[in-house]
Amino acid sequence: MTPSHQTLYLAPIVHAPTRAHLEIYDALICIRSGRVAWIERLPSLSQQAADTAAARRGTDLDNLVVVHEGFLCPGMVDTHTHAPQYPNNGLGHSLQLLEWLDALTFPLERKFSDDDYARQVYGEVVRRTLAAGTTTACYYSTLHVPASLTLAEVALEAGQRALVGRCSMDRNSPPDYVEESCVASMTSTHEFLDAFPHFFANTPSILSNGSAYANQPLVRPILTPRFALSCSPPLLSALGKLAKENDLPIQTHISENHAEIEAVRKAFPDLPSYAGVYDHFGLLTPRTILAHGVHLTPDEVSLIAERGAGVSHCPTSNVNLNSGAARVLGLLDAGVRVGLGSDCSGGPATGVLAAIRSADAMSRILAFEGLTARGLSIAELWFLATRGGADIAGVDAGSFEPGREFDALWIRPRSPGFWGGGDTRALFEKWLFAGDDRDIGAVWVRGRCVSGSPP
Amino acid sequence: MTPSHQTLYLAPIVHAPTRAHLEIYDALICIRSGRVAWIERLPSLSQQAADTAAARRGTDLDNLVVVHEGFLCPGMVDTHTHAPQYPNNGLGHSLQLLEWLDALTFPLERKFSDDDYARQVYGEVVRRTLAAGTTTACYYSTLHVPASLTLAEVALEAGQRALVGRCSMDRNSPPDYVEESCVASMTSTHEFLDAFPHFFANTPSILSNGSAYANQPLVRPILTPRFALSCSPPLLSALGKLAKENDLPIQTHISENHAEIEAVRKAFPDLPSYAGVYDHFGLLTPRTILAHGVHLTPDEVSLIAERGAGVSHCPTSNVNLNSGAARVLGLLDAGVRVGLGSDCSGGPATGVLAAIRSADAMSRILAFEGLTARGLSIAELWFLATRGGADIAGVDAGSFEPGREFDALWIRPRSPGFWGGGDTRALFEKWLFAGDDRDIGAVWVRGRCVSGSPP
Repeated sequence: MTPSHQTLYLAPIVHAPTRAHLEIYDALICIRSGRVAWIERLPSLSQQAADTAAARRGTDLDNLVVVHEGFLCPGMVDTHTHAPQYPNNGLGHSLQLLEWLDALTFPLERKFSDDDYARQVYGEVVRRTLAAGTTTACYYSTLHVPASLTLAEVALEAGQRALVGRCSMDRNSPPDYVEESCVASMTSTHEFLDAFPHFFANTPSILSNGSAYANQPLVRPILTPRFALSCSPPLLSALGKLAKENDLPIQTHISENHAEIEAVRKAFPDLPSYAGVYDHFGLLTPRTILAHGVHLTPDEVSLIAERGAGVSHCPTSNVNLNSGAARVLGLLDAGVRVGLGSDCSGGPATGVLAAIRSADAMSRILAFEGLTARGLSIAELWFLATRGGADIAGVDAGSFEPGREFDALWIRPRSPGFWGGGDTRALFEKWLFAGDDRDIGAVWVRGRCVSGSPP
Repeated sequence: MTPSHQTLYLAPIVHAPTRAHLEIYDALICIRSGRVAWIERLPSLSQQAADTAAARRGTDLDNLVVVHEGFLCPGMVDTHTHAPQYPNNGLGHSLQLLEWLDALTFPLERKFSDDDYARQVYGEVVRRTLAAGTTTACYYSTLHVPASLTLAEVALEAGQRALVGRCSMDRNSPPDYVEESCVASMTSTHEFLDAFPHFFANTPSILSNGSAYANQPLVRPILTPRFALSCSPPLLSALGKLAKENDLPIQTHISENHAEIEAVRKAFPDLPSYAGVYDHFGLLTPRTILAHGVHLTPDEVSLIAERGAGVSHCPTSNVNLNSGAARVLGLLDAGVRVGLGSDCSGGPATGVLAAIRSADAMSRILAFEGLTARGLSIAELWFLATRGGADIAGVDAGSFEPGREFDALWIRPRSPGFWGGGDTRALFEKWLFAGDDRDIGAVWVRGRCVSGSPP
């Protein structure tokens, strides 16, 4: 009766399939080929309840994992982060964006011309973000093709779901850290993209789950015009064309900092806005992730909503680099799709948990001051960190609804807080606001445990 | 040549003797009888430099501790926290102050009528806050005399510097968690205070450091009218009189939440303000710690500055309980003395580090929106967490200036961040914004290592 490669989890679960609903209940979840085949809500976390549910589903309980302590929740999606910048995490507090780029960021990114260095740093980045619960990461790498491919390889080997973007940047960057022309940049982009099938052909263990994944490999390339200022109009145009021809995802930065916005206005005097620049070049699509969006005008918000592009809200970074406070509630209410980003090393923390707390605080402080109607709810915070992020990353995970891939965390208390008794909701809130990576016992991506150990 | 009981530390140090100055340098520090006897700034962290400095001071290097990795900094001062509430840490996000008191706080505090329960919880609280770098804690306990004395005993045994306050609360509290009258409350307060010499007589190891400590024992009582609403006018009056007669420190809450402020206004219709209530009853003194101060009027700020009272800024709590955003920069500029408080369990985190980050974010977000002139500097944040807190707690520590007691932390990277090379400043910033309790290798109070192990 039991299909091979089926695993069942008997566990309390916490997930937010929509922005409005945080669902917390005891469940029996059936995973087949890395996907949630079905999920049954149980009256209690008992063997008897599991037996009944399994019988109703016509299956045995052969491969049953029982979560006696803690709960399962979807893995977190980091919709904006710079893999090469992790060594700078925690720095930059006294700087603003453009000075921070020159003083701290570009000098570090230059080092990734050395692929051995890249392998060492990226190995740590992937290992530590996975252990911190990041099951999907939307990575910027550097402009180097070999190091960018190394990042993809390292993520794939570790089993982290990733979108990997080699930075396109052919102007307004340091002389020794810039691409020499639009043509050279696009050549490198093609070289980067062309290498991807090669990876997957060599990793049958990842692809063997079946044809369902043929169109969504675990690690994918994403076009990455660094930001409007660092790309010439021909480069922006070429990338927009390439995205359209191949239905490729895109990630870039938008409206992070006042000085940056003013510089973009001057660089594109004939275009109506920062968002308008990307739209003009075909870079505002349903597959676009726009990092920050701190100072968007109402017209830009409407345009982004209309195009179906997503915004990666990066509050830890926006505080650290003195950028400003994005109006996330306004974005959501305008129909813009939103996820969270750690934006390392603009943001100091490894992983998404700090971004959740920062998004909470930022939204509440804006509400205190009458600048927005209310702070974000716990359901919204968790949705942004999981399902909302998965949506803008084009990833079929982020909740435990049937059909979605099983990217999950097992949370059980190990950090030195005060956990006490309490129900699953109390445990979840304690972890969300007072716990840390030590409480993450296991991390699954596409049904496979890739960090920690299952219960 | 070397006095007995002298220890020398050769270490990079980070401290903020004033709000304006973060000092970072390699030092040789001489500790005698728990105090900084002298500190020498060295040209480098070398044995030779230490030899030269020691010779200049006319001492040997017999008891020398060399900090090869990381740095030393003052221990953190938690100027407002509720020891019995730690089991609720992380809860309350969806509640406001007055409903949170009824739903979560009072039911938990009631349990401390059981002294065994108190000993168990307080043991964990003291152990974990010490390990998180809290060398001084200003604790509220509950209304129970035995459990409050247990907290003092537990802190003393563990070597944590503490001000312990038994809550005075004779009205506007649940029928089964309130003192029956002003007289009963004051009787309990006297019973609590009278027990203190008894503790110190029984702990010669703490007192043996000499007469310098006679007027500042490691654990001291602090008068604690819970807040204006929960104390009758006769009780406030009696506590003010007691404070004046015995020069006792005082801690209470002020202006945390709009509903609370309105209730205080109605309860004391003839008094000009919330701060005015405390002033009227003699409770606004240079030894008073006022927690929160979120919504103080300019008149209240002037009054508090004039009286020399301190404010404990509790940003994690003020976010969690939807209270509001205190204007810390405005308080400092008005001459009010300020420290930081974790306010557990209003605030979710164990220790002061989260309050530092939250104070940073809150101050910056207010500045983004033009509501204050600027965010707090790193020097100000660290000053608030150490020397500023020590000042309002009446504790002679918080910096490494000669004459101050040596309450210190050894910080060296162990949390799973990206620490890299970098100088002491980089390491300090990384710890402040991206590190955690795992990076605290040793904790000293009054020169004695009370958590972790020295290098």
